[in-house]
Amino acid sequence: MVEQAVEHKAECPEITRLLAQNATDITFDRLPAEVVFVTKHCLLDWLGVTMAGAREPLTRQLADYVGAEGGAAQATLIGIGGKVSAGQAALVNGSAGHALDYDDVLRLLNGHPTAPVMPAILAVAEHRGANGRALIEAFTAGVETESRVGAIMGEGHYAHGWHATATVGHFGAAAGVARLLGLDAATTAMALGIAGTQAAGLKSMFGTMCKPLHAGKAAQNGLFAAEMASRGFTSNPAVIECLQGFGDTQTDTFAPEKGLEGLGETYLLPTMRFKYHAACFGTHAPIDAAMSCRENPAFNRDAVERVEIRVTSRCLRMCNIPVPTTGLEAKFSLRFTVGLALAGVDTGRLDTFDDAITRRDDVMALCNRAVVIGDDTLERNEAKIIVHLRNGAVLQGHADLSDPVTDLELTWRRLQTKFRGLSEPLVGAAKTERMLEFVADLENAPALSPLLEATAP
Amino acid sequence: MVEQAVEHKAECPEITRLLAQNATDITFDRLPAEVVFVTKHCLLDWLGVTMAGAREPLTRQLADYVGAEGGAAQATLIGIGGKVSAGQAALVNGSAGHALDYDDVLRLLNGHPTAPVMPAILAVAEHRGANGRALIEAFTAGVETESRVGAIMGEGHYAHGWHATATVGHFGAAAGVARLLGLDAATTAMALGIAGTQAAGLKSMFGTMCKPLHAGKAAQNGLFAAEMASRGFTSNPAVIECLQGFGDTQTDTFAPEKGLEGLGETYLLPTMRFKYHAACFGTHAPIDAAMSCRENPAFNRDAVERVEIRVTSRCLRMCNIPVPTTGLEAKFSLRFTVGLALAGVDTGRLDTFDDAITRRDDVMALCNRAVVIGDDTLERNEAKIIVHLRNGAVLQGHADLSDPVTDLELTWRRLQTKFRGLSEPLVGAAKTERMLEFVADLENAPALSPLLEATAP
Repeated sequence: MVEQAVEHKAECPEITRLLAQNATDITFDRLPAEVVFVTKHCLLDWLGVTMAGAREPLTRQLADYVGAEGGAAQATLIGIGGKVSAGQAALVNGSAGHALDYDDVLRLLNGHPTAPVMPAILAVAEHRGANGRALIEAFTAGVETESRVGAIMGEGHYAHGWHATATVGHFGAAAGVARLLGLDAATTAMALGIAGTQAAGLKSMFGTMCKPLHAGKAAQNGLFAAEMASRGFTSNPAVIECLQGFGDTQTDTFAPEKGLEGLGETYLLPTMRFKYHAACFGTHAPIDAAMSCRENPAFNRDAVERVEIRVTSRCLRMCNIPVPTTGLEAKFSLRFTVGLALAGVDTGRLDTFDDAITRRDDVMALCNRAVVIGDDTLERNEAKIIVHLRNGAVLQGHADLSDPVTDLELTWRRLQTKFRGLSEPLVGAAKTERMLEFVADLENAPALSPLLEATAP
Repeated sequence: MVEQAVEHKAECPEITRLLAQNATDITFDRLPAEVVFVTKHCLLDWLGVTMAGAREPLTRQLADYVGAEGGAAQATLIGIGGKVSAGQAALVNGSAGHALDYDDVLRLLNGHPTAPVMPAILAVAEHRGANGRALIEAFTAGVETESRVGAIMGEGHYAHGWHATATVGHFGAAAGVARLLGLDAATTAMALGIAGTQAAGLKSMFGTMCKPLHAGKAAQNGLFAAEMASRGFTSNPAVIECLQGFGDTQTDTFAPEKGLEGLGETYLLPTMRFKYHAACFGTHAPIDAAMSCRENPAFNRDAVERVEIRVTSRCLRMCNIPVPTTGLEAKFSLRFTVGLALAGVDTGRLDTFDDAITRRDDVMALCNRAVVIGDDTLERNEAKIIVHLRNGAVLQGHADLSDPVTDLELTWRRLQTKFRGLSEPLVGAAKTERMLEFVADLENAPALSPLLEATAP
């Protein structure tokens, strides 16, 4: 109710300004090849999960609402078809992209980085006729900004109850759209302020339609922030570090140095990780480790006596339903998902996780032989599987998803397989291959609309 | 990133459900006459400040943005004219209504209650052709809900850096629109959940365009929450009290009993207070007290030797610029505003606070004779003025804005004067009187559009 002086925390550098400058400086010609390639990974992966997510009731309800609002035909509703305003497209496509919880993750962010950024920049790029290179620049600006804000906020932000994909995602969407609009650093800092004062999203909404909505709102609000900043709208341009700003109100582990390290020199985007299994991310390393046991020539599924699943104790509170009875519960069961992997079931398919899967005797037999052991000598995304066979043989599998990905071509092939699995049932093989080729050659695309229009059934 | 069980704080009643039920139960025929009358006060006052606020650059920038978005012609842009979608009208009108910081306040909320609620329900009422009684019910539902949420959050919420008008206002807007849509209690609780997970707004934005934007966003987001709940969208319907919910993440003074006291029996709406002076609310009691000194027959402005201004020490950190040099600074100067009142200048006029006022010798002479004294025997909104005249006479004035307002007719007359001062320069006397008559007879209005369309210049 009362004006209040804007004070900076004395010990803090001008974080918001530095991040805004960094986002502004990102230029396609100076990007390392791996940043460009991982951007293609993200776009392809996000398109597939968004097309599939567009069929969810929550997405249909949002599309119904924006239809009732009306709006200029600016940007495509992915997987649905038809155009709405750019902000509406960001909302609906952003929610669809996170509807299945099958989209990419980035550890420093403690969340899903593409979910809030891509729908915002795609909508604006389509509306303004931007090309593939501009999209790559905007995506890099968005992900670098939100990842560094996430690192600055630290674990305390997520632990306190904030859904970082939502809150921190606002900064990513705003920075991405600001880059696309060509805003200067000072105006981008204003956009970050407008975004930061809208940043919301509670973890207590997990398990409801609001979880995916958070990504859509972050996209829409971030887009709005950049658009308003471009019109001269003012905010506190030190929102991250100022007294009663984003850091001050929403974390107790504020650590500027963690987010500013290597700024302008290194990119965080290549630390992106993808989900190849349509289950909780905590089950991914165990599934991968189980798959490597299965690939061992000595493996014999009929001779399995006992399976040890070793993960950090953090995982035990996350995805440890011992005997699932629904498909959704199966996604949060270490024992069952390892059973699926050992039985050779495709854990990447969405329709694997229907309720009937929990009544498959062969899978349940393996599930029932598995024990989960908390082992805090392991890293957060690391797992060991030890399979004891009846003949006394012991097979070991290991996976650590925090290792740097060295083979980006392998990632690309795996993501192509995932994309085909999601896209072909919806739009057919011909359109699916056209989209694949489009994304592979993204930097030479003169406009984005052919890609987006191809997503309609 | 991981599903999480929704747990209630064991010691808490089902706060969200109780507030939703209360909002649902509000019916015009059972409302006390004073609730209906104060609703008219709020509507008239908000209309005036919104028409004036519509001329501010921030409102024009928002109107430009929603114009570019496009949308169905559902609800009027107040003071501008033309129709946009209901959500867009809530955003623009909501921001305009708080642009001048001249709108009503409610102590338990620690903020401005009408600012987020009225623009949301007016937009939906206009779009759906609702009548005056439905608007009164919706407004009561909105203000009762947000005031009680504010009371539950306590002082810690605002003190920590949250702009309660924005955050808590989300609940008011959602409850108001839910009532207008006729949602049942369970669906209204879902709406409160969708609203609560969008609730944002930082005090560090005060002094920028984002402060009024907060009210507009709360209106737009609350409207969206109720509309989505009506379509079956799900949320955590215990958002206020659940683990990692609104209370858990955003206050350290959570006190359910303060918000549930008298629920369904007493109304908080009549504790509404209005601003009659176009300056910081902290200067209002001192101005009122100074005006009563001036009304004393013994007062002689040319014989003033010394003026003591006694207020709580909280005020000294709020609005205590000793010698203002701009109109904006004058609004935050206890000495200067008391000088204005003693000089007989109209502190209710917006154009009083232009920069030239600080160069008026007669006012500055009085300002220079004033001293501000912190006195914590006084209440937050209480002030004493002691005027010492050269002849030895001592005149005392006293005002306490926390006292219950007993004379609602007097309030109505004062608000009419304020409204005319704001509206006549914009739309002329004839339209102004038509609007006054419309609001006075609100419960018999078959539709709201004639009122809203009259606000266009």
